[in-house]
Amino acid sequence: MSQTKGALDGVVVLDLSRVLAGPYCSMILADMGAEVIKVEIPGRGDDTRGFPPFKEGKSGYFMNMNRNKKGITLNLKKGKDVFFELVKKADILIENYRPGTMEKLGFGYDVLKEINPKLVYGCISGFGHYGPYSKRPGYDIVGQAMSGIMSVTGWPDGEATRAGAPVSDTVAGISLAAGVLGALHHAQKTGEGQKVDIALVDSLVSVMQIINQIYLIGGRLPGRMGNQYESTAPYDTFPTADGKYVVIGIANDKFWKQLCEMMDREDLIDHPDYAKNGDRVKNRDIIKPIVVEWTKTQQSDELVNRLLEAGIPTAPIYDVKQVTEDPHIAGAREMFIDIEDPEVGPIKVTNTHIKMSETKQGFRFPAPMLGQHNQEIYGDFLGYTQEEIRKMQEDGII
Amino acid sequence: MSQTKGALDGVVVLDLSRVLAGPYCSMILADMGAEVIKVEIPGRGDDTRGFPPFKEGKSGYFMNMNRNKKGITLNLKKGKDVFFELVKKADILIENYRPGTMEKLGFGYDVLKEINPKLVYGCISGFGHYGPYSKRPGYDIVGQAMSGIMSVTGWPDGEATRAGAPVSDTVAGISLAAGVLGALHHAQKTGEGQKVDIALVDSLVSVMQIINQIYLIGGRLPGRMGNQYESTAPYDTFPTADGKYVVIGIANDKFWKQLCEMMDREDLIDHPDYAKNGDRVKNRDIIKPIVVEWTKTQQSDELVNRLLEAGIPTAPIYDVKQVTEDPHIAGAREMFIDIEDPEVGPIKVTNTHIKMSETKQGFRFPAPMLGQHNQEIYGDFLGYTQEEIRKMQEDGII
Repeated sequence: MSQTKGALDGVVVLDLSRVLAGPYCSMILADMGAEVIKVEIPGRGDDTRGFPPFKEGKSGYFMNMNRNKKGITLNLKKGKDVFFELVKKADILIENYRPGTMEKLGFGYDVLKEINPKLVYGCISGFGHYGPYSKRPGYDIVGQAMSGIMSVTGWPDGEATRAGAPVSDTVAGISLAAGVLGALHHAQKTGEGQKVDIALVDSLVSVMQIINQIYLIGGRLPGRMGNQYESTAPYDTFPTADGKYVVIGIANDKFWKQLCEMMDREDLIDHPDYAKNGDRVKNRDIIKPIVVEWTKTQQSDELVNRLLEAGIPTAPIYDVKQVTEDPHIAGAREMFIDIEDPEVGPIKVTNTHIKMSETKQGFRFPAPMLGQHNQEIYGDFLGYTQEEIRKMQEDGII
Repeated sequence: MSQTKGALDGVVVLDLSRVLAGPYCSMILADMGAEVIKVEIPGRGDDTRGFPPFKEGKSGYFMNMNRNKKGITLNLKKGKDVFFELVKKADILIENYRPGTMEKLGFGYDVLKEINPKLVYGCISGFGHYGPYSKRPGYDIVGQAMSGIMSVTGWPDGEATRAGAPVSDTVAGISLAAGVLGALHHAQKTGEGQKVDIALVDSLVSVMQIINQIYLIGGRLPGRMGNQYESTAPYDTFPTADGKYVVIGIANDKFWKQLCEMMDREDLIDHPDYAKNGDRVKNRDIIKPIVVEWTKTQQSDELVNRLLEAGIPTAPIYDVKQVTEDPHIAGAREMFIDIEDPEVGPIKVTNTHIKMSETKQGFRFPAPMLGQHNQEIYGDFLGYTQEEIRKMQEDGII
């Protein structure tokens, strides 16, 4: 990195969002160098300040998700004028209230665009800001259930299964980051801001793209198939001699030939039932036990290494501890970094995954204490006098 | 939408990517109005032209993923000079070759930035462009296995489980879209381009954020817990009288009170074992059968409606057919659209999930036939003469 500033240096993001999806979006923008001003309720703050895990009584959840953000307090009901001053100076606004909440506060996009026509207004909700389900409560599991992804995750004889990470929230958060940056480009070129509206459900419907097509174009309803894959075979998890599983992905006929050679099953290479991927997909239930018979005789680590040497796609199945200790992921890619918190010292958190060659990224400064940057933002940035700031505090506005 | 152009109108994206992760990224950019020039191998094209499902012999996979892109053919080994002409006029380049491939062709970022210093070079690979595993083959299942997400997806007594949609590929694709748009902002402001490097594994490590922290900060190794959730309870799937399951997410004490009232179990509202979320999380295995006893007496649709009327987060578990027919998702949110293909007529595909209020989005024109826009791009855009284009064809360059 040749620079000390991030790609989004100078971009002002007014962040009203709480908990996960919105703050994950603004974290991505902050990690790229945007000036994110996190607005919290006076005396209370983002609910995640009380979420586990804790280090010395302070929430790791909050410290992680809000690094690189400045924190101010503002009572949105009492401090309308102050809020409008912030909106005037913002390039992007992020919120993840239930649709209708901002309108009730008098802060709908139609109002805010009169105050700042260039404003990019980004929002995340369970079902989006229009449509019949718009006001339904939306949590990650609701997005997973209604997008169809749960219906295809899990085992043929088992229940529909939730992906074990909050994929609705995070995919929606990244998508809003892409959307507001697209809209920022347009606003800077034309002077026209706009509203970017992301729904948890829509986000996973988009992730389902390839699976949706099986039904939309092929007319077949995709179901749960464990760790197998619709398009290629064998492409699955396989048990090993040490009681673990490894992933092997035979994506083409060349890999199949190499695998057969490794298994000492050259007879299968040109076998009419297995030679072509299309045939292997049809006969996947016959192929699997053949491969399992071989993998069951192998130690996991050795098997992965031998397959990799042959150029065959494979991987061990890591638990979280293994991920955080891996020399590539944690080492070279620096996917975990120490944040120095002024109250609890260093804590390790997940780093940005958007690696940029020339601009600074990742950790700049720790998550704010509640209202930590009131002086800087209200005084230096907006120009309120000390007297005015004191009065706002007294009146419970900030 | 007040405009006929997209937010990224005028942004030129040179797209060398194939199959899924890269093309999903450039599809997002194209859906926002960017001028995406898809570069394919003469006489062969993107492998996905041969991927199912098919409509009248034409790949739905390809037609979906490549809508709104212009298509040219170019042999990258023979047509170096032509490629450099394209690079000179591009704002963004997208590629998802195995790391090292572009360098071998003489097209590494270090070379291309000399030709176009403002170029934003975006790439997706399994493990990223640096680090010890950089050259390993990376498929979606490899990203899922090594990020840890498979280790926390599935059931406590079962195998590590793959999420049923290609979440590595799609999260990486969206992340690259956000990354290159951040880098574009910087390039337009400063004149400095850069390389944005996204790995499938890193992308899902970022999605695991909240789960990673349980280990990184709390010191506990998260495991598989079916459809339950670490932070709140009851938050799970529940069986109903008609043999289906519904999702109920009791995220706070208010929802718990409402649920108890609906179940006619007012005795549990203030019960010391269940009154607070922290206690419910500890006693989730006792709570679940109590809720199941009640949901098993209810019809799914009625149950969801009654819970929603009470304001309690809930959802049916949709299969793909239900998603594509839902009045909110398919209706109001228009998550599926008809693309008019010149050869096969209308096909239905998944629409963009980034909903923008002022600029045009979604479908503009169908996926290109192989080399369909050679004349437009090589002739009109780059200024080659008819004679030169004919010669390039003869020489197998395009």
